[in-house]
Amino acid sequence: MNRHMDKPIKLTEVCLRDGSHAVAHQFTENQVRDVVRGLDGAGVHYIEVSHGDGLGGSTVQYGKSLINEMKLIEAAVDECKNSKVAVLLIPGIGTMNELKQAHELGAQLVRVATHATEADVSAQHIHKARELGMEALGFLMMSHSVSVTTLIEQAKLMESYGAEAVYVTDSAGALLPNEVRERIKALRQSLQIEVGFHAHNNLSLAVANTITAIEEGATRIDGSVRCLGAGAGNTQTEVLAAVLDRMGIDIGIDLYKLMDVAEDIVGPLIPGSQEIRKGSLVLGYAGVYSSFLLHAERAGKRFNVDPRDILVELGKLKAVGGQEDMILDVAAELAKNDKVRA
Amino acid sequence: MNRHMDKPIKLTEVCLRDGSHAVAHQFTENQVRDVVRGLDGAGVHYIEVSHGDGLGGSTVQYGKSLINEMKLIEAAVDECKNSKVAVLLIPGIGTMNELKQAHELGAQLVRVATHATEADVSAQHIHKARELGMEALGFLMMSHSVSVTTLIEQAKLMESYGAEAVYVTDSAGALLPNEVRERIKALRQSLQIEVGFHAHNNLSLAVANTITAIEEGATRIDGSVRCLGAGAGNTQTEVLAAVLDRMGIDIGIDLYKLMDVAEDIVGPLIPGSQEIRKGSLVLGYAGVYSSFLLHAERAGKRFNVDPRDILVELGKLKAVGGQEDMILDVAAELAKNDKVRA
Repeated sequence: MNRHMDKPIKLTEVCLRDGSHAVAHQFTENQVRDVVRGLDGAGVHYIEVSHGDGLGGSTVQYGKSLINEMKLIEAAVDECKNSKVAVLLIPGIGTMNELKQAHELGAQLVRVATHATEADVSAQHIHKARELGMEALGFLMMSHSVSVTTLIEQAKLMESYGAEAVYVTDSAGALLPNEVRERIKALRQSLQIEVGFHAHNNLSLAVANTITAIEEGATRIDGSVRCLGAGAGNTQTEVLAAVLDRMGIDIGIDLYKLMDVAEDIVGPLIPGSQEIRKGSLVLGYAGVYSSFLLHAERAGKRFNVDPRDILVELGKLKAVGGQEDMILDVAAELAKNDKVRA
Repeated sequence: MNRHMDKPIKLTEVCLRDGSHAVAHQFTENQVRDVVRGLDGAGVHYIEVSHGDGLGGSTVQYGKSLINEMKLIEAAVDECKNSKVAVLLIPGIGTMNELKQAHELGAQLVRVATHATEADVSAQHIHKARELGMEALGFLMMSHSVSVTTLIEQAKLMESYGAEAVYVTDSAGALLPNEVRERIKALRQSLQIEVGFHAHNNLSLAVANTITAIEEGATRIDGSVRCLGAGAGNTQTEVLAAVLDRMGIDIGIDLYKLMDVAEDIVGPLIPGSQEIRKGSLVLGYAGVYSSFLLHAERAGKRFNVDPRDILVELGKLKAVGGQEDMILDVAAELAKNDKVRA
């Protein structure tokens, strides 16, 4: 264990943001209040509240929210005695105005998220957040799909814009523990600021990857109670808390209270189950965005190709969001090459 | 990676044995036939078929099986073209006669399971199995609760009886990756025979622990498709297969076929969900048998003590199955000491 003790570990609970995907953005104000009250009582440091795709995500393209996220942020702030409310912002989806509004409602931290090769689009939003007096952190999505060298370059850009931490964000749940280790280690060596880690559980490695990140010095970690997040969910917070307790690492969260929030408050909100199913598994295996899944299934049917082969190929090509057209090309190519898996 | 390449890795699928707990021992013959046909087609090496508590487990105490396990073993053997059928036997529950009968029906491998301090009770059954021409492996349950030194001693006993492999069996899903590493490493260094690993997912570490075991040279590994096993289930086989594939380790199983078995055949058999809930989490956290849970809840109510504190205390005392009386004593003691958690 070579965890650096310079900063305490801070947990951001994402079940009300990443988990928004899992409930098709249908959180009610009362649900948010109940969850926040429970998490605040358990001592969670930050609670992220936003549309699943961040501020401004409530659109036809990304899924309409039942309740305006600003109302939910206001309610969350109202319920917090100690926890701080965080928001997510993806430049291109969320705007400066929305950031300002969230800040005025009491959000104290923003994570500005970009694709792992596009840190440069985060500059303005990080500047703005710092100017507003918010904590501003960078979030490098799909971190598995770029080399460690690229990741360092991009993280340094975010640092230069004023980010106070940069996250290795495993959006597709595709990273293996040794890949997390090498990324966190590299960022710890290259940055002056804190390093964070955000996992997805598509390969059932979220908890293991998070403790690996902590061992390597990550001090900003993410969890979602009952795994309520996109795909197979994130690092299950109450499980992580139990594991950290067994490891002798105290992050100041009350394990039993957190377990009760999971069982009694968040559990009943889950529409299906957060088990690892075929869909989420193949996303982690292929290392692609979840938005590709439906397109790949359609293309597979049209070209008589296994959709999994399409997704694996897209993963190799490092396709990013917005490149859904590429899916048909890949399917056609696979069909032509007779690479159809029997 | 210091995996020893002397023996190929062999997977035993336990969803029809450990998973028997998850379906309250209500598997039908047709269900077993469907699952075995799928697993055999995917290239799984061994398929374990027995009552959840092993041969002879169908009792009022352990739960009555819907269908006699011998009938299920026979059906499984009938469906196998390449896979071999394995059985579990816990001395004291299963008998020599049942072992002989399973062998006559075509079971080719037996895992003789004892508590991690009681390997000596496995001698006769291992001898008998070898005499019958079966593969005989030792299974040290609750391996987390004993020192590495004790584990080595007990494993050596099993080796001396003729066991061809000994498993580190994490019955409570309580081991952390570094604890798995040290145990597998120690057994690899101390034994001439193969070393195996059987996980439970109560702390969401089953896949990570299994790949750690493989890195340290374990060549006998267990998985349960869709996590169908006691507590939070075992190492989810199709997820493990995807992870091993990403690691470049080929164990000769067809990933896509396995994913299809999981989604289309095993998934529909799951009565609830295999998510990590409060009950399974606390078992992993405390490191105790699942049979203690209900007793602890009752005792907690009676003495106004949090049942989790009772379980944690039992874990510290290294209580084993059959010591359920101890639960009331612990609860009374906790109440007296006013250790009640507010």
